[in-house]
Amino acid sequence: MKNKFASRMKGDGPSESDESIALIMKLTGMPDVISFAGGLPAGELFPIEEMKEVSKKVLEQDGKNALQYSSTEGQMELREAIADQIMKASGVETKAENILVTCGSQQALEFSGRIFLDKDDVVICESPSYLGAIMAFKAYGPKFVEVAMDEDGMIMEDLEKALKENPKAKFIYTVPDFQNPTGRTLPVERRKKMVELAEKYDVLILEDNPYGNLRFEGERLSAIKSFDKSEHVIYHGTFSKIFCPGLRLGWVCTNDKETFNQYVLVKQSVDLQTNTMSQKETALYMKMYDINENVKKINKVYKVRRDLMIKTMEEEFPKNCSFTHPEGGLFIWVTLPEEMDASKVLMKAMDEKVGFVPGVAFYANETHKNNFRLNFSSMQDEKIVEGIKRLGKVLKEF
Amino acid sequence: MKNKFASRMKGDGPSESDESIALIMKLTGMPDVISFAGGLPAGELFPIEEMKEVSKKVLEQDGKNALQYSSTEGQMELREAIADQIMKASGVETKAENILVTCGSQQALEFSGRIFLDKDDVVICESPSYLGAIMAFKAYGPKFVEVAMDEDGMIMEDLEKALKENPKAKFIYTVPDFQNPTGRTLPVERRKKMVELAEKYDVLILEDNPYGNLRFEGERLSAIKSFDKSEHVIYHGTFSKIFCPGLRLGWVCTNDKETFNQYVLVKQSVDLQTNTMSQKETALYMKMYDINENVKKINKVYKVRRDLMIKTMEEEFPKNCSFTHPEGGLFIWVTLPEEMDASKVLMKAMDEKVGFVPGVAFYANETHKNNFRLNFSSMQDEKIVEGIKRLGKVLKEF
Repeated sequence: MKNKFASRMKGDGPSESDESIALIMKLTGMPDVISFAGGLPAGELFPIEEMKEVSKKVLEQDGKNALQYSSTEGQMELREAIADQIMKASGVETKAENILVTCGSQQALEFSGRIFLDKDDVVICESPSYLGAIMAFKAYGPKFVEVAMDEDGMIMEDLEKALKENPKAKFIYTVPDFQNPTGRTLPVERRKKMVELAEKYDVLILEDNPYGNLRFEGERLSAIKSFDKSEHVIYHGTFSKIFCPGLRLGWVCTNDKETFNQYVLVKQSVDLQTNTMSQKETALYMKMYDINENVKKINKVYKVRRDLMIKTMEEEFPKNCSFTHPEGGLFIWVTLPEEMDASKVLMKAMDEKVGFVPGVAFYANETHKNNFRLNFSSMQDEKIVEGIKRLGKVLKEF
Repeated sequence: MKNKFASRMKGDGPSESDESIALIMKLTGMPDVISFAGGLPAGELFPIEEMKEVSKKVLEQDGKNALQYSSTEGQMELREAIADQIMKASGVETKAENILVTCGSQQALEFSGRIFLDKDDVVICESPSYLGAIMAFKAYGPKFVEVAMDEDGMIMEDLEKALKENPKAKFIYTVPDFQNPTGRTLPVERRKKMVELAEKYDVLILEDNPYGNLRFEGERLSAIKSFDKSEHVIYHGTFSKIFCPGLRLGWVCTNDKETFNQYVLVKQSVDLQTNTMSQKETALYMKMYDINENVKKINKVYKVRRDLMIKTMEEEFPKNCSFTHPEGGLFIWVTLPEEMDASKVLMKAMDEKVGFVPGVAFYANETHKNNFRLNFSSMQDEKIVEGIKRLGKVLKEF
C-alpha cells in the first residue's frame, strides 16, 4: 500500500535521540557490558514474598472481581490509598475521586499531551528534561521551549522570560524531585514562584513526581501542587519506583472536575481501564504492609550505591568533568567540557564494555552534546566500582 | 484557564451514543435491575484456582523479572503462545515476532486509529459496528461509511460500492465472528471476497476477532487473515473473552515488518509496555493447562443461556420484533418495527427494572433507532427468563 500511515506517523527519520535509545537497548542486552544506561529499580528489593501473600488473598477473597472488567477510573480502594499517600507525603489536598489510575505514569504523560496539546502549542520544560515525556508530547506536534537549570533546577527568571515570549505556552512540564536526568531538586521557594507564574500567565503545570519518595537524606519537600489554590497544577505519580514497575500502575491527580473527566474519557477510549488484579493486589499490599518501610529499604540500598558511585567518580574521572550530587532518585548527570561529544565517548566506552545514556536525547531540541546520564540504582557495588573505573579510563583518554 | 483543552477534545456535546453509555453505566450499577446491557464474561467461570497456582509459581520461579519492567513488544513466551493459538484456531500463518501484546484489544484498536487515520480519511465498517472501535477511531476525525449487512454479515456488493465511491478509504473494520452487536458471522466465501476487494482497492482490513473461540455449534471458520497473501489484513485479538478480562491482555498481529514497527513505536510512547506479571501468568497458564478446555466450559454455559434467551424471546416478544440467532459470542440483536425508537423503549423498560443497549450507539453515523442489543453471557438462567418476560411486556405495550 502507498501512503499507508497517517501523517502523524511520518517522522524525519531516526533522530539522534532515537539512535541513542537503540544503542541503549543494544547495550542493556549484552551480558558482559556494565550498563549505567537503564533506569531500572533494583529487582532484588521487590517484595516478592509479600506479593505471593497478597495475590493469594486477592484471588481467595475476591477472585471473581479481580479477574473481571472494572471501572475506567480505577479501583476505589487503590484510589483512596493513592490520595492518602499524596496527602501525607507531598502535602497535596485531594481525595480518591480526583485520582485516575493509569498504566504507569508514561500513560498519564501521554494523556496530558493528548488532552492539552494542539500542533504548534508550546511546552515549556527543563533543559534537559525527561526523555519519555518529550517522546509522548512530540506525538502531538508541539514546540518545546527549554528553560535553563542551575543546581537548584529550573531558573525562575528564565521561566518567566519563556512564558512572556511564548503566549502559546500550554503547560510547564517539570520533574521537581531528583529530576530525570539531572537528579536535581527544585527548592520550596521556586515551587511557590512557579505556581505564581502559572497563575500570572494562565498556563498549567504538569508536575511529574516519580522519585519524590526516594530521598536518602534531608526532608521531603512539599509538592508544587500543594501551593496551588487555583487548579493550575496536575500531578502525575507512579508505583514503579517505590513498588513493582512490572505492574504498570501510575496515576493522575487533578481536583478540577472538567479536566478529570477529560482524562477519564481518554482512558475509556484508549484501553477501557487499568489491570484489575494488579490494582487490587497493590491496594491490599498497602493495607497489609507499610509501603513506607519498603521505601526505606530501597533508599538504604540506593544511598550506598550513590555514595559509592560518587566516591569512585571523584577518584577516577578527570578534573574537567563535573557531575551532580543528588539527594535521592536514580540518576547522576555528568557534564563534559563543552567541545566533547558524549555520543563519541560512548563509542569508546562500548569498546571497554561500559555504557551510559548520552545527554542529547534529554534536550527536547537536541541542543547540547556534552552530557551523559548514569544510573546507580540497579547495579551491585563491585560493578559500580569496576564500571566507573573503565569509564574514567575512557574519559582520561579523550 | 480559557481554551485549555486541545481542539481534538472538543466534541459537539454528548451524542446519543454518549447518553446511551451513561445510561448503561447507571443501569449496571443498580442492584435490582436485570441488565442485559453489559458485555461481561461470566465471572463464575474464571479459573480462579488455576490462577492461584499460576501466580504462586510465577512469583516463586521468576518473581524478580515478573515485577520488573520488560520489553515493549511483550513477553516472548506469551507471544509464542498467541501465535500458536492463532495458527491453530484461525489458520493464520504467523510467528511470535509478529505479535505485539497490548492492554486489551481496545488498545490495539486505538493504535490502529492512531497509526492509519488522518482527519477525513474514510473508515468502512459494518452497519451496525462495535461501539468501542467507533469511539477509538473517532478521536482521529475520520468519516465513517457504513456497509449494510444481511444475516451473513457485510454484503460484498455494498462493500465494493463503498470502496469505489470512497477513494480516501483507509481500512475496512470488521468483526467477522459473532459480531458485536449483531452476533452475525461472515461466511468463508465473503471472507475471501473481502481480501480480494482489499487488494483491488488497496485498502487495509482490520480484522477484530474477540469472539471467534466462543462457538457453540458448527465448525470454526478460518480468519479473513488466513486468505491474505499480500499483507492487507491486520488481526486483532484478546484474552478477555476466553480467559480473564481484568488482566487486560490483547494483541495485534501483522506480518508486515514496517507496520509492526509502527505499532511498537506507538506502544513505547504511550505506556512503554503491558503488565509483565499478567503476561507471565497467562503464558504459564497456557503451559500448565489447556485453555481450550476453559473455552469449552465457557461455551457449554453460554449455549444454555443463549438457547434459554431465544426460547423465552420467542414466547414473550411480540411478533413484529425480529432478532438474530447467533451460533456463538455474547450478543443477540433485536430489530423493532421501523417507527419504534429503542431509546424510548428503554425508558419504559427502566420502570420495569430491565435494561439493554439501544442500537443507535452502534451505528457510526447514528442512522437507525429501531434496534437494541441483549447480552446473554453474564446472566443466571432464572434472571434471563424473568428479564425477557419483563421486556416482552414492555414491548407489547408499545
